[in-house]
Amino acid sequence: MTLLDDVLRRETRACARLLRWIDDGLPEARTILKQIYRNTGKAFIIGVTGNPGAGKSTLTDRLIGRFRAAGKTVAVVAVDPSSPFSGGAILGDRIRMQEHATDEGVFIRSFATRGHLGGLTSTTSDVVHALDAMGWDLILVETVGVGQDEVEVQRLAHTTMVVMAPGMGDEIQAIKAGILEIADIFVVNKADREGADRTVNELKMMLDMGFVPSVETQHHGPVALAAESKQPRVTPGGWVTKIIKTIATNGTGLDDLVTAIAEHRKAYELAATDPEFVRSRLRQEFIDIYRRTLFTHGWSYLMHEDHLNQVIDRLVDRSSDPYSLAEQTVAALGRG
Amino acid sequence: MTLLDDVLRRETRACARLLRWIDDGLPEARTILKQIYRNTGKAFIIGVTGNPGAGKSTLTDRLIGRFRAAGKTVAVVAVDPSSPFSGGAILGDRIRMQEHATDEGVFIRSFATRGHLGGLTSTTSDVVHALDAMGWDLILVETVGVGQDEVEVQRLAHTTMVVMAPGMGDEIQAIKAGILEIADIFVVNKADREGADRTVNELKMMLDMGFVPSVETQHHGPVALAAESKQPRVTPGGWVTKIIKTIATNGTGLDDLVTAIAEHRKAYELAATDPEFVRSRLRQEFIDIYRRTLFTHGWSYLMHEDHLNQVIDRLVDRSSDPYSLAEQTVAALGRG
Repeated sequence: MTLLDDVLRRETRACARLLRWIDDGLPEARTILKQIYRNTGKAFIIGVTGNPGAGKSTLTDRLIGRFRAAGKTVAVVAVDPSSPFSGGAILGDRIRMQEHATDEGVFIRSFATRGHLGGLTSTTSDVVHALDAMGWDLILVETVGVGQDEVEVQRLAHTTMVVMAPGMGDEIQAIKAGILEIADIFVVNKADREGADRTVNELKMMLDMGFVPSVETQHHGPVALAAESKQPRVTPGGWVTKIIKTIATNGTGLDDLVTAIAEHRKAYELAATDPEFVRSRLRQEFIDIYRRTLFTHGWSYLMHEDHLNQVIDRLVDRSSDPYSLAEQTVAALGRG
Repeated sequence: MTLLDDVLRRETRACARLLRWIDDGLPEARTILKQIYRNTGKAFIIGVTGNPGAGKSTLTDRLIGRFRAAGKTVAVVAVDPSSPFSGGAILGDRIRMQEHATDEGVFIRSFATRGHLGGLTSTTSDVVHALDAMGWDLILVETVGVGQDEVEVQRLAHTTMVVMAPGMGDEIQAIKAGILEIADIFVVNKADREGADRTVNELKMMLDMGFVPSVETQHHGPVALAAESKQPRVTPGGWVTKIIKTIATNGTGLDDLVTAIAEHRKAYELAATDPEFVRSRLRQEFIDIYRRTLFTHGWSYLMHEDHLNQVIDRLVDRSSDPYSLAEQTVAALGRG
């Protein structure tokens, strides 16, 4: 297992290969992931989410600078599910890569998730596990929006920042998308723009209206796995969501933001001394991986020996119904 | 099986009970669904989607009137996933119910899907199957937005209308959400408002920019089931998306809309003489039901005999990794 050793030694080409394997969904990637899982759990993972144009990338760049100055190594994973053709993330990536090209303590990688209406089920959490095992101190995960895949990615994060810009209608968007429930820190970026204080006040009002994040986010009773995997992430109890104003382009507010992240990290680490908190986090992590495994195996089985076409034949000639056929297929899964 | 017979005779209380069973996710509902599936396939299903405030409900009411005047029975299913507490759909429902209270040819039912960030995996398609089997001529399915669940529901529809109102920023929303791919007919409602023509022109431009719906929406190769179930619906090839201006409150444009629906229905029925088209539709239907069955069984197994807690124990003491445990659980599913 040379690749495994090379990955753990953080050898650049081996790491790149593993991430490509994960992105391509190769079974070989899973084999490695199983083996390196024991090396995970050391990195601190920061989620950065928000609408396009809010200034996430510039803010992330500034944070890289701060963390590097503090002697930490930083890996950035950017997920742009908006379009396989936009190339927005990839372009930004190139520019940012150049800036940090000579710094071996920085790793930046973009993934443009494919597919219609929300992309493939995320393999980004696998990428984050891999980077964690490779020994990066800090992992920043940049995502757009709050689709199923993005929620799953943000649930991996220890601290999640939601970045907004004034006057973009983000406020309403936030309520609609349930983004309130995932933010540990709201960043109102481009704070020199008109309407910045209004945005801050609207956020404050919404937070005052009674949303309190807590560990008590587990469903009980016979709910479907789908609903379970849509639960908000488990966050430290008692943490009060902070709102920070920044102007990423000139560094204004960066000190406050770095302090807020450090405070949340402390709160997180304190919470993590509670075994129940740890169990809740592991529970979510497992359910996400289980859901993806179900999908992958379920699909493979359907494709195996033309099984799907045989099912459709029986639906066409009306000799069975899709409910019975689905149950028979699931029952056959484990035996196959 | 008295309930079964009563449902097929469209006995009001039996029908209400079955729909409640479906909504509550009772296994008994599945038993009935399997048996009545042979009676489905007769109703024409119309999807109505769009943002809150676009005027979907008023438009639906007008359409009910038109279809009733043409001697058709009409069932309406409204799904409001925005909030379990909003009660918006339920309230509207009550008002609408009264209007049609004396008309046995009209059935209206709202479902407020529960859960965070997008609700439970939809059982609405089961509701539509049940109504179809009950013998309603037309089934209108009203949904908000284009989350995974709503896309699944719209894929059941033979004709899908996307309702917009000028000046609500819906245009941009449409591109972002991939809603273009599901619309057979765009309705620009509240057409007396400023900006209506601009909205129409923007839609025309977007449609001219080259989006052509077609049967060729199937993925090939080893993609995950998740991506598959996010594919746009199979629509009749060659259909050119229509844009209709309406003012639902006073009935303006309703004739055009009814004509457009009739035209699309003809196109659909022509397409449905092609066995490959029928197979593609059945394929999507099966994959959606299969995905839900996987979820339900996968979750039941996890809850069975405290299995999930045993998995978490092994993650806590780091004696295994979540990837291996997920695979072992999936493998055990069929045997269990």
